[in-house]
Amino acid sequence: MALADTDAISPAELQLAARNHGMPLEALRHDVTPLGLHYLLIHYDIPIVDPASWRLDVGGLVAAPRSLSLNDLRALPQVTRTVTMECAGNGRARLDPRPVSQPWLLEAVGTATWTGVRVRDVVEPAGGAVDVVFSGLDRGVEGGVEQRYERALPFETALADDVLLAYEVNGVPLPPQHGFPLRLLVPGWYGMTSVKWLGAITVIDHAFAGYQQEVAYRLRAHEDDPGEPVTRMVPRSLIAPPGVPDFMTRRRFVDPGVVELTGRAWSGHGAIVSVEVSADGSTWHAARLEPAGDPAAWRGWSFTWDAAPGEHELRCRCTDASGRTQPDDPPWNVGGYANNAVHRVPVTVRDA
Amino acid sequence: MALADTDAISPAELQLAARNHGMPLEALRHDVTPLGLHYLLIHYDIPIVDPASWRLDVGGLVAAPRSLSLNDLRALPQVTRTVTMECAGNGRARLDPRPVSQPWLLEAVGTATWTGVRVRDVVEPAGGAVDVVFSGLDRGVEGGVEQRYERALPFETALADDVLLAYEVNGVPLPPQHGFPLRLLVPGWYGMTSVKWLGAITVIDHAFAGYQQEVAYRLRAHEDDPGEPVTRMVPRSLIAPPGVPDFMTRRRFVDPGVVELTGRAWSGHGAIVSVEVSADGSTWHAARLEPAGDPAAWRGWSFTWDAAPGEHELRCRCTDASGRTQPDDPPWNVGGYANNAVHRVPVTVRDA
Repeated sequence: MALADTDAISPAELQLAARNHGMPLEALRHDVTPLGLHYLLIHYDIPIVDPASWRLDVGGLVAAPRSLSLNDLRALPQVTRTVTMECAGNGRARLDPRPVSQPWLLEAVGTATWTGVRVRDVVEPAGGAVDVVFSGLDRGVEGGVEQRYERALPFETALADDVLLAYEVNGVPLPPQHGFPLRLLVPGWYGMTSVKWLGAITVIDHAFAGYQQEVAYRLRAHEDDPGEPVTRMVPRSLIAPPGVPDFMTRRRFVDPGVVELTGRAWSGHGAIVSVEVSADGSTWHAARLEPAGDPAAWRGWSFTWDAAPGEHELRCRCTDASGRTQPDDPPWNVGGYANNAVHRVPVTVRDA
Repeated sequence: MALADTDAISPAELQLAARNHGMPLEALRHDVTPLGLHYLLIHYDIPIVDPASWRLDVGGLVAAPRSLSLNDLRALPQVTRTVTMECAGNGRARLDPRPVSQPWLLEAVGTATWTGVRVRDVVEPAGGAVDVVFSGLDRGVEGGVEQRYERALPFETALADDVLLAYEVNGVPLPPQHGFPLRLLVPGWYGMTSVKWLGAITVIDHAFAGYQQEVAYRLRAHEDDPGEPVTRMVPRSLIAPPGVPDFMTRRRFVDPGVVELTGRAWSGHGAIVSVEVSADGSTWHAARLEPAGDPAAWRGWSFTWDAAPGEHELRCRCTDASGRTQPDDPPWNVGGYANNAVHRVPVTVRDA
């Protein structure tokens, strides 16, 4: 992957930023992200799918191949989960040097309520199963190879209780950009796992070696490092920016006195056990955690800040039940994945 | 406004690109843009408004001041219109030098079906009325001044038959990012006119001189030029990119032979009367126009292209009933507004 030495974003990166959608951080105030504010990362084009002729083909090493319509799927036991999803590339544009791809700052996240069926109610692997491949209907060229978007999960993971095939989001049929008519949903994993516009599920007897598994989405120290696969989300917390913004710089302006800070924290490795806030970069204070909702959804937090006039930098960091926390400085890798460095928000507190 | 000499996008521009949303151009295939794919340009933060306590205050030079709830508005005669809206800054990032602001390429457009009431059913100006000021609930700092977002229309324009206060989009209540619970909608004008999160409408006896009217959104030849206000959309046509994209470059790959090109064209100055397509940059061919729908909505077009293997650049341009058309080269102004240069789409046609 190309690297950029400076802060300057290239025309190719701008093209990606102009079509993919971040969640404006003030939307952290919503428990469930309103439709249209959830992040979107779309590798190729958004397909237009005719739901009448669409079928999900389930094949390979299965007890019996199946071809399922949307009505067939709706007749199966229904499951609803509220899930926080983050792009593996969130934070990429904060890395130095910057891997050249979709230049996310911190907005590639969202929480939605998804409804569908369990994968295990649709797929019955036969003996010898190793991986379950999920194939999207979206096509394009990447790394010089034309491909449909495909990712796989080990079959035990694919059949876990919480892995869904979703046909609704926030109570309505999936809109085109979220994978209409059906998408995979793997709670706790980065978003590249949750294949959209599903066309086929295929059980295979070997480890899947497709482009999005073996070339993209790996944590590589250098170009020749085979690296480790990107899987579950590392912990991250974000602050809903207080006060009002400057249009151009997005710097925040706040009146002095008591300011109720709020935000969200999540991890794919375990429940959030603490969130800490700092206004001086060295003293950290425990934030209050809101009651937990769906274990796959972000956890709300709040902190009462006594804001004195002047320039400040607010920071937050979280720790999960596995003991993982957020580093002060961005962890670097060739693809620019999983940068969960501490969130920093510069704030100007006005004079009284 | 600062100008940038090169293609390099600054960190401040990237922050804006990461929070504002473009419409991925493949969504040109939808007559009405699905919710979540319409463009969004949000100057400050998206407010969260409690619809129970919200009121629209109508005052100033009116026959009688009013304070209207959402239910009051829903009891008035309902109007539904399908309207194409474009940001005045669409195309800004294609200018050289580039005015530093939201760096739109070509995606700042969308078409939605809006439902609400006519402004004239809510506002009855008294004698001496000059401008009608529409005040949003969104606040921020711009040009060094803290402000709420406000724009005005001459009172005859505000009371025109097609100027609406919309509370629904595509059949559902406005989502937060489109101005919940109520926004202005001025068909044919650039989007900055259609104030979101309306809190007040005030009739005044002089020309409104607020920041968004007198400082921003003016066509200035140089910094000291008072310029002309940005008002109605100049004509633009776009091609739905054919074939499949490369992830990083967005270059298109197409098989040789007959390719059915489609796209949209619109203007705020009159109906679209022709769309032309070129595959060689010099020979222009008339596209077929789809039947017209709402006069405020874009017009669909199609063109059958016989694609020969090799490298091509597709172009399209349109002309409206006023005789306005699209220039080959971007028209430049200090704010980077109304750049409606011909759309160009590089395409690689594969060997047979």
